[in-house]
Amino acid sequence: MKIGIADTMFARVDMAKTALQVIGNKHQVERYTVPGFKDLPVACKKLIEEYGCDIVIAFGWVGKEDIDEVCAHEANQGLIQAELMTNKHILKVFFHEKETRDEKKQKEIALDRAKKHTENALALLKGKSELTREAGQGKRQGYDDAGEIA
Amino acid sequence: MKIGIADTMFARVDMAKTALQVIGNKHQVERYTVPGFKDLPVACKKLIEEYGCDIVIAFGWVGKEDIDEVCAHEANQGLIQAELMTNKHILKVFFHEKETRDEKKQKEIALDRAKKHTENALALLKGKSELTREAGQGKRQGYDDAGEIA
Amino acid sequence: MKIGIADTMFARVDMAKTALQVIGNKHQVERYTVPGFKDLPVACKKLIEEYGCDIVIAFGWVGKEDIDEVCAHEANQGLIQAELMTNKHILKVFFHEKETRDEKKQKEIALDRAKKHTENALALLKGKSELTREAGQGKRQGYDDAGEIA
Amino acid sequence: MKIGIADTMFARVDMAKTALQVIGNKHQVERYTVPGFKDLPVACKKLIEEYGCDIVIAFGWVGKEDIDEVCAHEANQGLIQAELMTNKHILKVFFHEKETRDEKKQKEIALDRAKKHTENALALLKGKSELTREAGQGKRQGYDDAGEIA
Amino acid sequence: MKIGIADTMFARVDMAKTALQVIGNKHQVERYTVPGFKDLPVACKKLIEEYGCDIVIAFGWVGKEDIDEVCAHEANQGLIQAELMTNKHILKVFFHEKETRDEKKQKEIALDRAKKHTENALALLKGKSELTREAGQGKRQGYDDAGEIA
Repeated sequence: MKIGIADTMFARVDMAKTALQVIGNKHQVERYTVPGFKDLPVACKKLIEEYGCDIVIAFGWVGKEDIDEVCAHEANQGLIQAELMTNKHILKVFFHEKETRDEKKQKEIALDRAKKHTENALALLKGKSELTREAGQGKRQGYDDAGEIA
Repeated sequence: MKIGIADTMFARVDMAKTALQVIGNKHQVERYTVPGFKDLPVACKKLIEEYGCDIVIAFGWVGKEDIDEVCAHEANQGLIQAELMTNKHILKVFFHEKETRDEKKQKEIALDRAKKHTENALALLKGKSELTREAGQGKRQGYDDAGEIA
Repeated sequence: MKIGIADTMFARVDMAKTALQVIGNKHQVERYTVPGFKDLPVACKKLIEEYGCDIVIAFGWVGKEDIDEVCAHEANQGLIQAELMTNKHILKVFFHEKETRDEKKQKEIALDRAKKHTENALALLKGKSELTREAGQGKRQGYDDAGEIA
Repeated sequence: MKIGIADTMFARVDMAKTALQVIGNKHQVERYTVPGFKDLPVACKKLIEEYGCDIVIAFGWVGKEDIDEVCAHEANQGLIQAELMTNKHILKVFFHEKETRDEKKQKEIALDRAKKHTENALALLKGKSELTREAGQGKRQGYDDAGEIA
Repeated sequence: MKIGIADTMFARVDMAKTALQVIGNKHQVERYTVPGFKDLPVACKKLIEEYGCDIVIAFGWVGKEDIDEVCAHEANQGLIQAELMTNKHILKVFFHEKETRDEKKQKEIALDRAKKHTENALALLKGKSELTREAGQGKRQGYDDAGEIA
C-alpha cells in the first residue's frame, strides 16, 4: 500500500516528520509540499490519481485570524470534495492557532494529532471495520480522549 | 436490501448499536467506522459504491466549540454531495453538544435520534411515498414532535 | 409534463397539499416525502432522474435556531447543485421560523409562498420567457409584492 | 456570438432592459426570467447548454435581510459552479439593498452596474486580453472607480 | 512549460506585472484579465483547458467590506474546485483591504505576495518535493516569515 503525505511551508511545525516516523518502512510514502493549506486539496488528489496513493494524510496549520479560519474552511471543503471524487480517505490533520497561543503547546498538540491520525490512516488501510471497536468512545487527536458517556 | 452504517470514534455514544437493534435481521448491514465526522462523506460513498448499500445512516457527534460546528457544516455539505453523486439517501444523524451540556440528556437525545432516523431509513427503503402520511406533521428526532399547526 | 413535489415530515404545515390544489389535473405529479429538508436535494434529483419529472417544487420548513439556518443553507446549496446536475428547475420553497413567531402567520406565509411558487413552476414549464413580463417588478412569495422602483 | 440574459421577478429594477440597450443589435440575445436569484444558476446553465449562449449576464437583487445575503451567497456559488461546468463566463450582476436604503440611489447603482458589466461582457467576448489594459486599475461597477494606487 | 496569469480590473495594484518580471523569459505566459475576482475561477480553468497552461497564478484584490470577504470566499471555493477539476495548481494570491488601510502598505504587501507566490509557482512546476525542504518553516507571503517553532 502507498501512503501520501501532503504538507505546507506555512505550518510552523514539521508534522509530516512525525507521520514518517509512525509509518516507518511499513508502507511506501509519497510526499507533496505546497505553500499553504488552500493548495492541499489538489495536491492530495494528485497524490491519489497521479502517484497511486491509497490514502493521504494532509497536514495544515491555521493562523490565528478569522480570515485564516475561513481559508481552513475552504481547504476542508476541497479536501472532502477530493475524497468524494477519488473514493479514497484523506485524513484532515489541521492545527488551529485559535486552540492556544502558547507555542510550546501548539507544537505538542500538532505533533500528537499528527501521530494519532497517522495511526488512524494505517488502521483505515486495513479495512472499514478496523476502527469499529473504538466507535463511540470519544477519541480525540491532539488532546486526551473525552471518553464514552456512561 | 443492504443498509450502510457509518460512525465515528469521536462520538461519545454508540449510536450505531441502537441502529443495529432497530434493523434487527430485516436487512443486511455494512458498518464503516472512521475517526471523525469529516471522514463520513467518503465512507458513506464507499458504502454505496463499493459495498452495494441501498441507503446509509451516518452518525456524527459535534463538539461544543464553534470550530466543531464549522466542521459539522463541512461534513453535511459533503454528505449531501455524496447523495447527489450516488442518487441514494444518506440519513445525517448528528448530535450537537450545543443542544445541551447535560451528558445524560446528550445520550438520550442522541439515541432517540438514532432510533427514529433508523426507522426513517427503513421507511425510505419502501418507497418515496412511505412517509407522505406524516408530511407536514412537525416530526422531530431527538425531541418530542412539534406537531402540525392547526 | 410531469411535476415533482418533495416535502418533509419536519414541516409544520402541509404545503404540498396547496401545490396539488394549484396544479389540479393539469399535469402528472410525483410526490416524495423525506424526514427533513437536508434530505430534499437527493429526493429532488431522484424525482427528475428516476421518475422523469420536468420540474420539481421542494418544500422546506426551517426551525428558529441558528443551527436550523445552517442546515437550510446546506439544503439550498444541495438543491442548486441538483439543478446544475440535471438542467431542471427545482423551486426552493422554504419557510423560516425566524420570519415570525406567530404560528397563524407562519401558516399563512408558508401557504401563500407554496401557492405562488407552484404558479411560478407552471409558468417556467411554458418556457424561459413566460415570466419576463414580470421581470424587475419586485414580486414576492409569502408577502405582498415590493413593486418596481419608479 | 449569442449573449444570454438571466433576470428575476424579485428585482425591483429592470436591469436587463439596460443590458439590451447596451448590446443593441451587435449580438443575438436570449432572455430567461426566473422568480428569484437562487433560480439563476440553472437558468444560466440552460442558456449556455440549451440555447447556445457564449456568455451570460445574470441580474440579481438582494433584499436587506441577513437571510437574503445568505441566499445571494448560495446563488453566487451556484453561478461560479455553472461557469466551471460550462467553461463560459457568467457575469454576476447583483445589487444588494444593504448598499443603501435610498430607493433612488438603489436604482442608479443597479443600472450603472448593469451597464458597465454588459460592456465587460462584450469585451470578454473579444478575447481574454481585451480587459488587460485596465488590469489593476481599481475599476468599479455601480460606483466611481477606486483607481490604481500610485 | 506554460504559466497562466489571471487578474482583475478591480485590483488597485498590477500584481501580474510583478509576476511577469519574476518569470522573465523562463516560461511561456498566457494572461487573462476579468472584471472582478469572482470571474477568476472560470478564467483559470480556461487558461488550463483551452490555453494549455500547466499552472495558474490568480491575483485578486478584496475590498474592505464584509460583502467583499464573502465574495472572496466564493472565489476561493471556485478556484479550489477548478483545481480539482483539472488536477493543476492555481495559486490563490489575494490581497485583502482588511489587512491594512494604509494604501502604501497595501501595495507593498500585494507586490511581495505576488513575487513570492510566483516563485512558489515556479518551484511547484519542478515537482511535488521541490518545496519540501521548506515544509513546516512558517513561510509567509506578504509578510515576514513566522518561522518554525523550536
